Amino acid sequence: MHSVHFTAETTSNGVVERDFAVDGVPGVLWSPASGPERAPLVLMGHGGGTHKRWPAMTGRARLLVTGCGFHVACIDAPGHGDRPRTAYDEQEIAALYRAREAGEPEGPIVVRYNAQLAERAVPEWQATLDALQELPEIGTDGPVGYFGLNMGTAIGVPLTAVEPRITAAVFGLHWPDALAEPAKQITVPIEFMLQWDDEHIPRASGLALFDAFASKEKTLHANAGRHKELPRFESDSAVRFFARHFGRAGTSPA
Amino acid sequence: MHSVHFTAETTSNGVVERDFAVDGVPGVLWSPASGPERAPLVLMGHGGGTHKRWPAMTGRARLLVTGCGFHVACIDAPGHGDRPRTAYDEQEIAALYRAREAGEPEGPIVVRYNAQLAERAVPEWQATLDALQELPEIGTDGPVGYFGLNMGTAIGVPLTAVEPRITAAVFGLHWPDALAEPAKQITVPIEFMLQWDDEHIPRASGLALFDAFASKEKTLHANAGRHKELPRFESDSAVRFFARHFGRAGTSPA
Repeated sequence: MHSVHFTAETTSNGVVERDFAVDGVPGVLWSPASGPERAPLVLMGHGGGTHKRWPAMTGRARLLVTGCGFHVACIDAPGHGDRPRTAYDEQEIAALYRAREAGEPEGPIVVRYNAQLAERAVPEWQATLDALQELPEIGTDGPVGYFGLNMGTAIGVPLTAVEPRITAAVFGLHWPDALAEPAKQITVPIEFMLQWDDEHIPRASGLALFDAFASKEKTLHANAGRHKELPRFESDSAVRFFARHFGRAGTSPA
Repeated sequence: MHSVHFTAETTSNGVVERDFAVDGVPGVLWSPASGPERAPLVLMGHGGGTHKRWPAMTGRARLLVTGCGFHVACIDAPGHGDRPRTAYDEQEIAALYRAREAGEPEGPIVVRYNAQLAERAVPEWQATLDALQELPEIGTDGPVGYFGLNMGTAIGVPLTAVEPRITAAVFGLHWPDALAEPAKQITVPIEFMLQWDDEHIPRASGLALFDAFASKEKTLHANAGRHKELPRFESDSAVRFFARHFGRAGTSPA
């Protein structure tokens, strides 16, 4: 039995932000300040080298909470944020930096390391979800979404493949090598983002990962630009995607 | 000098709908009922075999007028709606029906016929735009968009390539054969829609047309499904695209 331990709470501009831990894994839960009404939950996975409170995470959480009234949770991935790195983590991070400095492709290292992180992270997410669903304002019968790009996709795709509680997901910006197989097991609606001029992920690789999902309802959003140039308006689009599937009108800006 | 002749006017649910003709080409202009305030104009091109008042046209016009306060104009393409067919039109339409009945590919006929229609339609659209910009509620200094899929793209791409007044456009669902060259001359922001499982347009062909646009800001929306299964929410997305570029907040549903 997993349970949530809250360690801090702040409220600003209509959003309650609570630090928590489940089995020692630290996370943040963002909720509407308006009250304890039961609402859908969106799990957010952060990217490689960042953490649960990275600006992209807090920005997306605010859009989902204030635009849709949802709860949003993000946990630090293994070796990220407030969590210690293992010797293996250090070794892969060093390999990644070496590749970058040498101008060699990052893909093979990121694919391998992220797959290993996903093996550790999937059971942590499941325990976290068990615990969050014990909260009366979330509960076990409401919809659950997953939203994660880059490493958040490397963890989120295998998680969604084995986790029937997740009924809609936003993914993107990763390679198909380790993810095409779990993607073939995913049938829930997805929105998938890729960058048309990605200098790390070949266009055909990104398209192949989108193609692999078994979902009858899936949408690809491909934008001109390099890997880190994903337009800000795609966050609004992801919020509308969850609003559409979870039955709440999104009120985020155009 | 081209001028607009209005022939009928109705108002319902906040939208004024005026029938007009410019040089004998019939069209519809939808405007906000709230008053004569100057507002951006979106030109809409209808699909093959349909006309200016097809439900997809009136539905999109309503979203743009009530959601953004824009003016929206659609004219009948040559050989469509209230316009007579030439002998050439009849011949190509017969060829298309024969191909359909024989289970042969429609693409080569549609590509050829639509290219010929575009040659006739581009100057008609330019005359219509000249005339509409004479109206005080539109004017010559406001932004102009173009929104057309299928045949609306076959006409809209060559139109946008030669028409500097169009500063943002939504296209989709066509082949690159006749359109890749004019697309290479287009640099304004575009949103482009294709169907991932299109039974008429091969996936690689749709992607090649998207790739051809020279626009620095371009977004591909590819949805699972066959040619005619474009999801309804893509109309909302197109409205938000124009709202984003023309500086008005879209208020259409998620």
